[in-house]
Amino acid sequence: MIDTPDFRSTLASLRAQAPLVHNLTSAVVANFTANALLAVGASPAMVEAPDEIAGFVTVADALSVNLGSLTPQRRAAIALAVTAAVQGGTPWVLDPVGAGGIAPRTEFARAIAAQNVAAIRGNASEILGLAGLRGGGRGVDSGTGSDAAIDAARSLARQHRCIVAVTGVIDYVTDGETVLEVALGHAMMTRVTGMGCAASAIVAACVAVQPHRLLAVAHALTLVGLAGARAAARVDGPGSLAVAYLDELARV
Amino acid sequence: MIDTPDFRSTLASLRAQAPLVHNLTSAVVANFTANALLAVGASPAMVEAPDEIAGFVTVADALSVNLGSLTPQRRAAIALAVTAAVQGGTPWVLDPVGAGGIAPRTEFARAIAAQNVAAIRGNASEILGLAGLRGGGRGVDSGTGSDAAIDAARSLARQHRCIVAVTGVIDYVTDGETVLEVALGHAMMTRVTGMGCAASAIVAACVAVQPHRLLAVAHALTLVGLAGARAAARVDGPGSLAVAYLDELARV
Amino acid sequence: MIDTPDFRSTLASLRAQAPLVHNLTSAVVANFTANALLAVGASPAMVEAPDEIAGFVTVADALSVNLGSLTPQRRAAIALAVTAAVQGGTPWVLDPVGAGGIAPRTEFARAIAAQNVAAIRGNASEILGLAGLRGGGRGVDSGTGSDAAIDAARSLARQHRCIVAVTGVIDYVTDGETVLEVALGHAMMTRVTGMGCAASAIVAACVAVQPHRLLAVAHALTLVGLAGARAAARVDGPGSLAVAYLDELARV
Repeated sequence: MIDTPDFRSTLASLRAQAPLVHNLTSAVVANFTANALLAVGASPAMVEAPDEIAGFVTVADALSVNLGSLTPQRRAAIALAVTAAVQGGTPWVLDPVGAGGIAPRTEFARAIAAQNVAAIRGNASEILGLAGLRGGGRGVDSGTGSDAAIDAARSLARQHRCIVAVTGVIDYVTDGETVLEVALGHAMMTRVTGMGCAASAIVAACVAVQPHRLLAVAHALTLVGLAGARAAARVDGPGSLAVAYLDELARV
Repeated sequence: MIDTPDFRSTLASLRAQAPLVHNLTSAVVANFTANALLAVGASPAMVEAPDEIAGFVTVADALSVNLGSLTPQRRAAIALAVTAAVQGGTPWVLDPVGAGGIAPRTEFARAIAAQNVAAIRGNASEILGLAGLRGGGRGVDSGTGSDAAIDAARSLARQHRCIVAVTGVIDYVTDGETVLEVALGHAMMTRVTGMGCAASAIVAACVAVQPHRLLAVAHALTLVGLAGARAAARVDGPGSLAVAYLDELARV
Repeated sequence: MIDTPDFRSTLASLRAQAPLVHNLTSAVVANFTANALLAVGASPAMVEAPDEIAGFVTVADALSVNLGSLTPQRRAAIALAVTAAVQGGTPWVLDPVGAGGIAPRTEFARAIAAQNVAAIRGNASEILGLAGLRGGGRGVDSGTGSDAAIDAARSLARQHRCIVAVTGVIDYVTDGETVLEVALGHAMMTRVTGMGCAASAIVAACVAVQPHRLLAVAHALTLVGLAGARAAARVDGPGSLAVAYLDELARV
């Protein structure tokens, strides 16, 4: 997938169009997510005041919704933003952090996923949890290999007519029929907080510029996996990996 | 400006006095801002509970107000802090993130700027927006060169009897009469989130130790530009730039 | 302490058990804290929605409560979490950021410390403030050497039947009787925001896996001090130090 004209075209569009990606995300990962979006050529914004959201999301090229460290305030902001995105035709992407492991989170994730989500990216525990199956996650890290969630991903994709990506050692991306595999990345990436969250935001950026959504998501994960693998090859610890990852995202 | 005794004196005061800078800022940039302040020798604090703010801001040497990712809670906290700062004589600095591009943000920025602000630092879109002119920004990044906002900066400075800095490839700093230029920095700095926000916090730190406010702001931007240029000269990506920038801030 | 079988056993348990540490902390330090926990082998989570907290904290292996940049929302979340932790038998650790320097913060810190806290880690100003003595801090940085707070630490430890650590150039750890010293670390660590906060979270991780609590806290600070000293020995600025520190935490 790395050398296809399609992938190169998505990358070129990212840099040429600098899509404005509106993020509703956790304070834990907001900085890393914004830097990852800037590195790939997108323009990030985190607008979460209730009176600012609806106006902003319709100007944005994509909305990225992340459920990490959810607060009642962010839950309300997300509900407003998703409604405005759907009404205004802004594509939106869901990262269901903690779904499956935290019951109220799972309920909320299911409720918003039903609102015309363009793509969902999660680890196996989250995708299984969202599909109503037992994931085995504790906290926000997955306890299960990504292949265990392929069927759940396919079923969710059909249910919501969206793209679903389950990431892990191998990433699987499906529209409910076709399943693409991306086998890049590096195990050390699980030692950096927000790697998955930033990947979801990059999915949103690619969805904004690549109209073929299955490809958009697969290209985003290819970009993430390439940058992660290249970064991991030249560093020897998680602190350095986060830094090198941003450098490599800008260089791919 | 780099080799003047004035600049060296501001730097020396920063390190000797370690001004306590109270920040009300976005979760996206809070960590980077605190680290930038520590690097230049200041002592950062982020106090935002309503019952803690007024007492704290009067102990602080300066208050830095940043409108990024504004929430209703932070808006209320900022209103309390600015009132207490003005009453207690603590100088305060405004970074009007998103002004011009987000209507409620612009209104709020204008309302608080009228309360004895010591200095305002923004990009061209934000300064134009604050002055009631059309900026052309989308999201929080500027769509316009900094020179397009010089007149707006001068007019705002006269209106609020404060210093206004519009930053970009060239930074312009004005008290409404004199316009100083700082042409340092590097384009790669726009690929790191919070660079402008951290610059505004450093402006607050310099205002705390340098009584000549036009110089204080120009010195802060000189420090920022020098560190950014030196960092950009020895790295090759935005992840490394953020790290090297903090190192260089501590070294200038 | 570095080469003792006990220390190696705590480290091995951290990596083998990957304790789930629930953090309620400031947006300023949340990312660095999560990365520090991942680096030592723990699994961090930041769950702060009122309807999610009680269920989550009882699943977690430890709770880390940090009072930095406290908001009314986080104050309420902390109260819920501490009650649930005590009822469910999850050990919890307090980092009383700003105690002593900010009156409402001091009151809140004292009130929750009385609820069966397992360990408290703070700088001298904070430990003195918590003990009702004058600390001399301004903002969140200590104005006093750690040895000035040894008696206060011992008294707090006896009062709450917990472990108290006062950190600085030398760290002191006490159960109210024995006082252990850890003299590692490096002065440059004070130029990186969140170093103390991350240390407190690592204390929580060690308390989760090492039943001897005095040793658990001392081992956590040994780990922090070793990583800090090794990182400081090979970098020349605070930006690089934060990165190298995470690498070294993963390597100890």
